[in-house]
Amino acid sequence: MVQIAVLGYGTVGSGVLEVFKTNGDSINKRAGKEIKVKYVLDRREFPGDPVSSILVHDIEPILADPEIQVVVEVMGGVEPAYTFVKRALLDGKSVVTSNKELVAKHGAELLKIAKEKDINFLFEASVGGGIPIIRPLNQSLTADEIYEITGILNGTTNFILTKMKEEGLPFETVLKEAQEKGYAERNPEADIEGHDACRKIAILSSLAFGMQVDYEDIYTEGITAISQADMAYAAKMDREIKLVAMSKKQDNEVWARVSPLLLRMDHPLSTVHGVFNAILVKGNVIGDVMFYGKGAGKLPTASAVVADIVDAVKHLERNIMSFWSTKKMELLDSYYAPTQYFIRLGYTDFSTAIKQVESLFGNIHSIQLEDYKDEFGFITHESTEGEIQEKLDQLMDGSSGLEIRNKIRVE
Amino acid sequence: MVQIAVLGYGTVGSGVLEVFKTNGDSINKRAGKEIKVKYVLDRREFPGDPVSSILVHDIEPILADPEIQVVVEVMGGVEPAYTFVKRALLDGKSVVTSNKELVAKHGAELLKIAKEKDINFLFEASVGGGIPIIRPLNQSLTADEIYEITGILNGTTNFILTKMKEEGLPFETVLKEAQEKGYAERNPEADIEGHDACRKIAILSSLAFGMQVDYEDIYTEGITAISQADMAYAAKMDREIKLVAMSKKQDNEVWARVSPLLLRMDHPLSTVHGVFNAILVKGNVIGDVMFYGKGAGKLPTASAVVADIVDAVKHLERNIMSFWSTKKMELLDSYYAPTQYFIRLGYTDFSTAIKQVESLFGNIHSIQLEDYKDEFGFITHESTEGEIQEKLDQLMDGSSGLEIRNKIRVE
Repeated sequence: MVQIAVLGYGTVGSGVLEVFKTNGDSINKRAGKEIKVKYVLDRREFPGDPVSSILVHDIEPILADPEIQVVVEVMGGVEPAYTFVKRALLDGKSVVTSNKELVAKHGAELLKIAKEKDINFLFEASVGGGIPIIRPLNQSLTADEIYEITGILNGTTNFILTKMKEEGLPFETVLKEAQEKGYAERNPEADIEGHDACRKIAILSSLAFGMQVDYEDIYTEGITAISQADMAYAAKMDREIKLVAMSKKQDNEVWARVSPLLLRMDHPLSTVHGVFNAILVKGNVIGDVMFYGKGAGKLPTASAVVADIVDAVKHLERNIMSFWSTKKMELLDSYYAPTQYFIRLGYTDFSTAIKQVESLFGNIHSIQLEDYKDEFGFITHESTEGEIQEKLDQLMDGSSGLEIRNKIRVE
Repeated sequence: MVQIAVLGYGTVGSGVLEVFKTNGDSINKRAGKEIKVKYVLDRREFPGDPVSSILVHDIEPILADPEIQVVVEVMGGVEPAYTFVKRALLDGKSVVTSNKELVAKHGAELLKIAKEKDINFLFEASVGGGIPIIRPLNQSLTADEIYEITGILNGTTNFILTKMKEEGLPFETVLKEAQEKGYAERNPEADIEGHDACRKIAILSSLAFGMQVDYEDIYTEGITAISQADMAYAAKMDREIKLVAMSKKQDNEVWARVSPLLLRMDHPLSTVHGVFNAILVKGNVIGDVMFYGKGAGKLPTASAVVADIVDAVKHLERNIMSFWSTKKMELLDSYYAPTQYFIRLGYTDFSTAIKQVESLFGNIHSIQLEDYKDEFGFITHESTEGEIQEKLDQLMDGSSGLEIRNKIRVE
């Protein structure tokens, strides 16, 4: 028998207990040993909940208990999770976590401790909820040099964008509905500003490229500026607007960003709708592979946590995760990152506006919609972030009556 | 250093050597040991090819060489592959294979030997080419009870169906083009009759349900009857025709089949085009997860083989694959399998035909196309294979002037 402790009895923590209850027999069979949850740590009381009999409010007895071999951290946030996890690992207890903030910030260090102790620090649930992505990156794509990861990593924003498109509603209305349905939090900033996706792409990039990619270095833009007009242009161009997190290695430089992206309909991510997530990985021999599923939710996330627990139990004294170096990876300055933009430009005189745009951007194909009469859209040629921004600055400086209504990157 | 032997220097075998040449350094780093290909077995000579220096024509020196710890079987076909693989395992050498015929037929037995010897029999490349699916089923979805696997498992037929749809061409023309491009073999039967997909779904089902699913028991229908008319109706109904392999557990009964299927456009598999494959897995806690990528081809397949070699080298004396019992799983008689059909019916008098159809099938919605004047299509209500067939027999018996032009299952 292997005894474990679960830190946190929120959505994921209670999901983990539910998964053991539902599939306990087959889980034990696959782990090769009976798994018993000995403690659940939470500050709160849960009167009437069967968890009460194993509920504790203090981490110390858990860390002091030599019977606990695996600690499951599903509290979220950097502290006190980091302190608890680090102490557990230093004590020789394997750790499973769903905590993306923790992994993005301290993953390299915690993996190193696990490696030194020949135990495991596993975090499948920290990216993509139930979607297997960490383990495939670690164990299945070992023949490849990964050179690109592109993902829809946040279900809340994907739900909002899907609804905006399908029902023609403005961002604020859909956000409110998402909050009412529990798909978005009362404070939705981490999702809608792209911070959540940013931490996840930082984790995937660190793992794929083997060095610490700091999430603070990743250019991040959310979806709050996406309007009904943008959706209308996207439909006209037969494209989808998605919040895409990507990181790419080109000529030994890595650049990464999180931003809305106009995807062509034949892009594998364009058909990922609603709360689903997907991660497209490109390797130099395997080509494109994509992983798709529910990126959040109690049971899908708990499924990934429990799969990690099974792996931890099967490898109690053997380290199985490759780790990424604590050495920081310097990302390419976003000024130099290659990009292409769709730009919506308000004008007073159309032919003057086109002339001014073309003098800076070369020949463009303008798109006009009946419902948006005093503006047009166009897609720039491929350039860099910096150059396009400079040209836009010049355009604004050198002309009157022009107004940039929005700009969205194009894949 | 770990020395390995590669049996077969065809497409996959030469791909494996190419992957080692391209990514050897990082592969060795991930394996934790240097991997050296000591022998390549093939009947043929390859004058001028660097492989000549390690080429052998006889299996005996390989099996007799105690330095060989991993044998890579990429010959294809059941014999002599089965004899070679079994002897290697019994000698204590781990085996990696891309051979779906071998795994479908003898997987249970070979896994059992590997388990007994505490070595490994790995076969990621046998299903879905480069797509990680065997390892995720084995290691990532361990918290779940899998109850359904649905896949586009054959790139050749998916290429043909995609081309037929996009270019409005008949099956024979597209098949010929696929053969010229090397996407279809000169003898295309295994692909177009569904046998290849059948073996792959047998492997996935055996692994997911833990018992031997014999591919001979799986109802299998290919794509040779799919016509331009079928494609036109599918377009009218906003659906895609795909060759889908599926197996499903319902009320402790498992049924499986390979057949063309009319998928709604919001089905995750409907957007899998060309030579791509995808496998949708449903679990009782994770929900839907999908794995997508190139299902065939030299380098994607070799990538999966080499990833297995890395795993075998990392676990030389430790069995890591769950195995399925040699006990045969009795599949539900296809007579009782739930289904729904789209039926194209030729008629002489429309209103009589509708009356006859509705007297047997209840209210239906008929679909008529301008280009196909003397027929209509309709979708049956959900029933079983047997009942629908019986009703169709009755329809044909009881009426004159009716002709079933085609029938295609509907998801």
